[in-house]
Amino acid sequence: MPLDPFVEILCVGNELLIGKTLNTNAQWLGKRITSLGLNVRRITVVGDDIDEIAGAIREAVQRGPSFVIVTGGLGPTFDDKTLEGVASALGRGLEENGEALEMIKERYHSYVAEKRVEKFEMTPHRVKMAKLPEGATPVPNPVGTAPGVLAECEGVSLVMLPGVPQEMMAIFDESIAPLLRKIAGDMTFFEASLDVKGVPESTLAPVIDSVMHDNPYVYIKSHPQAAERVPHLELHFSTTSNDSALARRRIGRVIIQISEMIKEKGGKVRPIKA
Amino acid sequence: MPLDPFVEILCVGNELLIGKTLNTNAQWLGKRITSLGLNVRRITVVGDDIDEIAGAIREAVQRGPSFVIVTGGLGPTFDDKTLEGVASALGRGLEENGEALEMIKERYHSYVAEKRVEKFEMTPHRVKMAKLPEGATPVPNPVGTAPGVLAECEGVSLVMLPGVPQEMMAIFDESIAPLLRKIAGDMTFFEASLDVKGVPESTLAPVIDSVMHDNPYVYIKSHPQAAERVPHLELHFSTTSNDSALARRRIGRVIIQISEMIKEKGGKVRPIKA
Repeated sequence: MPLDPFVEILCVGNELLIGKTLNTNAQWLGKRITSLGLNVRRITVVGDDIDEIAGAIREAVQRGPSFVIVTGGLGPTFDDKTLEGVASALGRGLEENGEALEMIKERYHSYVAEKRVEKFEMTPHRVKMAKLPEGATPVPNPVGTAPGVLAECEGVSLVMLPGVPQEMMAIFDESIAPLLRKIAGDMTFFEASLDVKGVPESTLAPVIDSVMHDNPYVYIKSHPQAAERVPHLELHFSTTSNDSALARRRIGRVIIQISEMIKEKGGKVRPIKA
Repeated sequence: MPLDPFVEILCVGNELLIGKTLNTNAQWLGKRITSLGLNVRRITVVGDDIDEIAGAIREAVQRGPSFVIVTGGLGPTFDDKTLEGVASALGRGLEENGEALEMIKERYHSYVAEKRVEKFEMTPHRVKMAKLPEGATPVPNPVGTAPGVLAECEGVSLVMLPGVPQEMMAIFDESIAPLLRKIAGDMTFFEASLDVKGVPESTLAPVIDSVMHDNPYVYIKSHPQAAERVPHLELHFSTTSNDSALARRRIGRVIIQISEMIKEKGGKVRPIKA
């Protein structure tokens, strides 16, 4: 399955490990990066611990992705340790970055102007958000205070984004997606789904094998639905191509073939809208 | 943060990497394992690829957890590759397991008896679910066809569960939680949350530092809420202890202290019900 180039996602936060928070950031990023025509090969979640973060980054870099997208741990509190972890992985120190400091000041000044806060001082906890690994670059945060951060490690681009979803999404769409698009070239991801009732997954398994054998460019995955009296599953079809008309034709052909075969086995088929 | 013993979670499935499916299994397992008093130190997601699965298992085993809980990829279709990945990580082959085969047959016979399917044969795709890594043990699946699987690798227990949430949960609660409870001893996880409005996170940061300094047993984490006009966040308090009265007193004391300090800064505090 892995195609080059690929991307890894690293999510930082105890709240994800203890199940307090559902990892919607990883899902959003996975969908976005895939739709840009790139392959997400691994998602890792670690806690708010410098050694855990540094270890996960070093391991990811060893696997040779084009990008590691890191979310969480950029804020002002003691448990925001991502930049320390990245610095440790890079074997570098942290330094106050003038550009990042200006971004943070500007944001707080705007909060005062909008009367969201009464007054504002550049406290050590606010300056902390501008302490980047040596050689790193801040990325503007259009909706919050902590800037995103770009760094490089052995030819791998590290992208650090805040964990607050709105901030993560805004920085990604504004500044990171264009970087990913460059390495993706003109590849695009296409998908479609069918809802299938009345045929157990184990009966469909040889059907899927046969259709995939005839259609090597389309990946078919079956997703059994919640246990019901009648067997019920979703069939998901996907392909990546630089020719959208060809990709659609390929998926269309697979859907026609497999639908016929499912009906022969007494199943009911219905397209699922994206 | 890491306490011994710890657990790792490994989720297998392309649908998680492409963002088609939200990883609710990892959240459910994280919450369950944490509430058993154990530490989840890492969550990893890889695709339906034997080498990716085997690599992730070998890396997890190297980190020395007590358990690696693996979800997904146990079904009858070609893309269900978890057991092949585990066998590869263990350097063993796959063998047809008589006990697993009986579990699967029994399940299909019950489907026929309940008239959920018309007839049933033990096709190669159904037998596939009984092909376990040599030396592994099947675990009954009370709600679906694919059994869970237990294996051991260098003193680390590997637990393989289906990806369908109802099946994963049922096997975990029935057969896996009792195993985890044994290594957890009598430790339990306690938590509470406060909703805080009107104080920016960067203003609260030194308050949190000071309260944590006075209360080393309680971990405090701030979770900024969606960008609003008024600063808004959740403060989460947690501790692990074998003495529930002591744990509750510790968290109660922290909540009283920090609530006073937040009110002094003009903030509003409200408990959040679990």
